[in-house]
Amino acid sequence: MYPDQAATRRLPVVRVQAGRRSAADDHAAVEEPLQVVVNGEAFAVVMRTPGSDAELTAGFLFAERVLRSPDEIVRIRVGDGHLGDGRATDNHVGDDRLSGDRHNVAEVETVADVRQRLAASSRRVTTSASCGLCGRQTIDSLKVEAPRVDGKWTLAPHIVDSLPGRLRSGQPAFAASGGLHAAGLFNTIGELTLVAEDVGRHNAVDKVVGRALLDKALPLSSSMLLVSGRASYEIVQKAFLAGIPMVAAVSAPSTLAVELAEEAGITLVGFVRDGRFNIYTHPNRISGSQT
Amino acid sequence: MYPDQAATRRLPVVRVQAGRRSAADDHAAVEEPLQVVVNGEAFAVVMRTPGSDAELTAGFLFAERVLRSPDEIVRIRVGDGHLGDGRATDNHVGDDRLSGDRHNVAEVETVADVRQRLAASSRRVTTSASCGLCGRQTIDSLKVEAPRVDGKWTLAPHIVDSLPGRLRSGQPAFAASGGLHAAGLFNTIGELTLVAEDVGRHNAVDKVVGRALLDKALPLSSSMLLVSGRASYEIVQKAFLAGIPMVAAVSAPSTLAVELAEEAGITLVGFVRDGRFNIYTHPNRISGSQT
Repeated sequence: MYPDQAATRRLPVVRVQAGRRSAADDHAAVEEPLQVVVNGEAFAVVMRTPGSDAELTAGFLFAERVLRSPDEIVRIRVGDGHLGDGRATDNHVGDDRLSGDRHNVAEVETVADVRQRLAASSRRVTTSASCGLCGRQTIDSLKVEAPRVDGKWTLAPHIVDSLPGRLRSGQPAFAASGGLHAAGLFNTIGELTLVAEDVGRHNAVDKVVGRALLDKALPLSSSMLLVSGRASYEIVQKAFLAGIPMVAAVSAPSTLAVELAEEAGITLVGFVRDGRFNIYTHPNRISGSQT
Repeated sequence: MYPDQAATRRLPVVRVQAGRRSAADDHAAVEEPLQVVVNGEAFAVVMRTPGSDAELTAGFLFAERVLRSPDEIVRIRVGDGHLGDGRATDNHVGDDRLSGDRHNVAEVETVADVRQRLAASSRRVTTSASCGLCGRQTIDSLKVEAPRVDGKWTLAPHIVDSLPGRLRSGQPAFAASGGLHAAGLFNTIGELTLVAEDVGRHNAVDKVVGRALLDKALPLSSSMLLVSGRASYEIVQKAFLAGIPMVAAVSAPSTLAVELAEEAGITLVGFVRDGRFNIYTHPNRISGSQT
């Protein structure tokens, strides 16, 4: 479907196995915001992996009930390419991987009767400074909101190895269903201090940060966050706003998560499983000699 | 954090292993919408697992930059419980598992200076018929949009078993990163016809449905959808709108996904791995004798 798209990007990491470090390369899923503009008005910003952006835009607007038929699409333009002059009979997807911001904007032109649905849509969003059109702007606008995290502590790598097991021990429901995401907050000696589960990854993080907020415990500068799945931009953003200096994920981070963690001073760790993990940013908080 | 919450619910399933069926019970993650109301106005609907709803609301509004400090919260009321008279000094979370709709509404009262941020928020949503306050309403409002799916075909269980392997073969980037979700569309003899990857599960489904929409191939009444992770309400909703009669997931479905699949006439299959799977709804599309 997208033979020439780069959905992943190679990144340098510090690989830690049984406490021993080595320099390595790893791949991270590319994540960037796509602004969907319908008939000249900003409709939504979708965090996505670039590639098949015209398809994503059409499918998203169909699921949101803004579009109900392909005949309602006059044109979808992504970057310098466009799709659908003459009402979507041309299925060629334009080059949506151009440099600059334009490849992160999808402009949709529709037939007239879509306008009323647009106005009624529950997902319509207003344009805002927090919705940059490229990852760079997204991160810059966020940095206005909060300073870099504080937290000059270090911990031993075996503590990182122990986090997933400790999180599972604190989860009553996960074992029963396999269908819940979990987020855990740990202190710097690896003790689980808060845990939450949810069908949504972001919700699980919101629950632990929300508890800490209500306890007036922010910023959480002596805490680590572990998530049971992937680390996306939004997960690192929530940690950043809460002042959490280390984020660990059982699975992979996205490129935008890595970029934000780098800028924010957050130690980002991924693939924490089977006695090993990768450090993507700020390895100084984990003890061990550099190679 | 929520000792008495039921985050999972027991459901009857048809378990299929090496083609043999048996009746069994399985647990599914509970998923329900929570409407967040700030100072009397609907702000957003969050699909979540009930439990710690006051924490979720506080953390969500903090991440959205509507709240910046616990001192800005006058009160959070969830169901008949409430949190924070006298500015969030009481951390007791009220009983947010009451029956009826009220437990799916979180009412937040804030200090005055939050109003301006609310108006500027990029996530503010208007109330809409598509955002019911309980799962029942959510499903009912969706049923107005589309009829039950059509598709009277059946297939052999070994075809279901083969889907994850076929999806992985069609994914160029997944093996490299482990960080991408995938969605695949298959015909009724198990051939992969469309595949998409994305950091977001919903995006991967939007990409394949969007491609089919642009190809004027909807409704997809002779197709199956496989997702690499969990099956939430939104995944089944997208399949329903596209007219896809069978949805399979490598991991678990949510309760609301099961309820929607039942109502919509969709065969929902979960935990497709290692030569076995569970059928949650409409098992008639998979051949084999019932026990």
